[in-house]
Amino acid sequence: MKKPKRGKRKRRHQTPPSVNRRKKKFAWLNVLPADIWLKVKRGVTVWEALQKTNIDLGGECGGLGKCGKCKIRVVTSIGPPTAETVELLTPEELEKGIRLACRTKIKKDLVIRTEAMNDEVELFQILKYGEMPIIELDPLVDKRPVTMEPPSLHNALSDADRIREALGPECQNLKISYHCLSSLYSNLRATHFDGTAVLHDGCLLAWEPERMAARRYGLIFDLGTSTLVGKLVSLLDGREIVVVSRLNSQNKHGSDVISRIQYVKEHPKGLSHMRKLLLQDLNTVTRRLLETQALVPDDIFVAVAAGNTTIQHFLLGLNPAGIAETPFAPVTTEAMTIRAQDAGLRLHPEAMLHIMPSKSGYIGGDLIGFILASGAADREDRLALGLDFGTNGEIFLGNKRRMLTCSAAAGPALEGA
Amino acid sequence: MKKPKRGKRKRRHQTPPSVNRRKKKFAWLNVLPADIWLKVKRGVTVWEALQKTNIDLGGECGGLGKCGKCKIRVVTSIGPPTAETVELLTPEELEKGIRLACRTKIKKDLVIRTEAMNDEVELFQILKYGEMPIIELDPLVDKRPVTMEPPSLHNALSDADRIREALGPECQNLKISYHCLSSLYSNLRATHFDGTAVLHDGCLLAWEPERMAARRYGLIFDLGTSTLVGKLVSLLDGREIVVVSRLNSQNKHGSDVISRIQYVKEHPKGLSHMRKLLLQDLNTVTRRLLETQALVPDDIFVAVAAGNTTIQHFLLGLNPAGIAETPFAPVTTEAMTIRAQDAGLRLHPEAMLHIMPSKSGYIGGDLIGFILASGAADREDRLALGLDFGTNGEIFLGNKRRMLTCSAAAGPALEGA
Repeated sequence: MKKPKRGKRKRRHQTPPSVNRRKKKFAWLNVLPADIWLKVKRGVTVWEALQKTNIDLGGECGGLGKCGKCKIRVVTSIGPPTAETVELLTPEELEKGIRLACRTKIKKDLVIRTEAMNDEVELFQILKYGEMPIIELDPLVDKRPVTMEPPSLHNALSDADRIREALGPECQNLKISYHCLSSLYSNLRATHFDGTAVLHDGCLLAWEPERMAARRYGLIFDLGTSTLVGKLVSLLDGREIVVVSRLNSQNKHGSDVISRIQYVKEHPKGLSHMRKLLLQDLNTVTRRLLETQALVPDDIFVAVAAGNTTIQHFLLGLNPAGIAETPFAPVTTEAMTIRAQDAGLRLHPEAMLHIMPSKSGYIGGDLIGFILASGAADREDRLALGLDFGTNGEIFLGNKRRMLTCSAAAGPALEGA
Repeated sequence: MKKPKRGKRKRRHQTPPSVNRRKKKFAWLNVLPADIWLKVKRGVTVWEALQKTNIDLGGECGGLGKCGKCKIRVVTSIGPPTAETVELLTPEELEKGIRLACRTKIKKDLVIRTEAMNDEVELFQILKYGEMPIIELDPLVDKRPVTMEPPSLHNALSDADRIREALGPECQNLKISYHCLSSLYSNLRATHFDGTAVLHDGCLLAWEPERMAARRYGLIFDLGTSTLVGKLVSLLDGREIVVVSRLNSQNKHGSDVISRIQYVKEHPKGLSHMRKLLLQDLNTVTRRLLETQALVPDDIFVAVAAGNTTIQHFLLGLNPAGIAETPFAPVTTEAMTIRAQDAGLRLHPEAMLHIMPSKSGYIGGDLIGFILASGAADREDRLALGLDFGTNGEIFLGNKRRMLTCSAAAGPALEGA
């Protein structure tokens, strides 16, 4: 992205590229209202040219000329519209210079105007609240205040054994994460051996000052195909403290998972690009969530994520290609608890990310989440019906005796893609 | 480290710094035979100036003027020797311009000559072979050849479940490391679903081509205060294939652990510097070991390290300050198995590093290793005596009924530090 310099160039360069005798390989695309200048290969479409930018045109078919959503207004002179464009736009729109970005090839320097979609990414509507069943809290992470005697000739235990002793007999075999151990010497002394032990499954994750004992928060991510929702919850009482949602930046590569898998197959670095887009979004959502409560990433030790199987693959950087072709086999459907840092989330270095299990390529962790929350697996009397009409629709009907699930594209079908 | 440029400088700069009227803050130190030029603050000692270089003077007291080992020959004119220097060097040495680096302050530009200690770091003598008890092999890592059907409509299992099925019922709950999972899709297809599963404690660490099944090697590191020994062993039969040793680069900060802990206490980044020196050495030893067998770092999935408690702390980046003052409490004495990558060793990304347990600040993992290998814990009839006369000496006497250990500085005591 580079805006051509003015004034400083030598005279012979001031002639606009299009006036030059020799046909040039590149042309300039000026995108308003963002006023971004792109040097692009002649012949690519506006849609292709904008893929590497943050400009979201809101298309739904991944540039195939089918949904008619990626509208732009061409400000400079423009040739006649293509057949698809005529079919998908009204005569009034065509008259105003409106075209489809994916059907508009850049043959010469071009000035276009896009809707400022980017400013709206966090105002999108999505179901963020709902009925919450009464559940017994059993968070992955526990915090315990600990008071110890400093080392003395009468008690020459190692720092690690000192903590084990203070936590009592049930913690005799306590493991200590390597990250925690690295700074244990200085952290214990900085807190004068009075502090808070952050524990997970028989392992000390961190040693914090005493006042941090009550700071117990977790994050929940609902990974939608179109929209990402993040929630900050209290691990003390399960209360939802704040919710932030955001359009999934992967939308620009198609609004349904098949288009996105296609993108991954066609681009050598497509998978890491998709993953990066998702992580940027989740880290942005996280930052907003934390800001509202004056928290920092180090305050979060646990996050849970659920979404359809493909999006969960994107989050983990797993190749979802198998999901798009028979027999639709994903890489994995297991629940996983990994270090959030390994996944690329900016939380405490020892924070855990729990990924919900899925059932198959098209029954994802979000529907499993519903089944668990509904308690269907425990009841024999009545049936539970779960309807998830997102961009990908998934349906569950059943109880302890039998469970049925099915899925189909929902959003784009209704929206005309 | 910068050699002053010749020829290209302007005339007024050609005057040597010492001839300039204004007293300059810095002086040049030219170190032969390496011909290294150092710009140093006036008033620091040669010993201090060389700390940031790879030049090893072979001192033993950490620059305290006690051991008389850090000899250099001053080539340019030099003032009278200090009292310590006169005491520790012979009149012939003083006559030849030989001085102690730690007692020689740089007051003006200086040319010195050091012994080429650096070239000898890998020729140092150390006990590298010995009696080996017959032990039953039970390596941390197992490799199993696996053959699978590719996905089909009749078998639409996920990649992960496909491997679980192929490995048999005892692997139904097999975990898959995140790193392995990330590349599982492409690795399975690249090997046409016939390959080698690398397993550790119910977890799949990697998927390799079929031919790798017999490549089973492990590394052993003996972390001596003065000398580091690395061994490449076969995990098929326990055979020691090749041994490489190298002087511990930490020697330049004192040849005993107390001097090195003192260095860590006095320098804000001392601990990470010490750790870096050790890791550089171990990674060099590893590279040499692998080269001899045409192996690559990815071939190694397991390494074991043992040394005195302080050196083990350095390897893990744990602050050893507690070991040098009453009540001599280390950060930890537990055995640990961590990712070698987290420790900074260049092996397979999922390789494990096992650190031997120690008993206290001065009874380290190496003596524990001896006790285990001697089988003393299992015998009641006779006593086992273990003598480890390294730079730090440790002694063990005992059997199943009672075990006694003690330790004292050994090497430097004999060597006059």
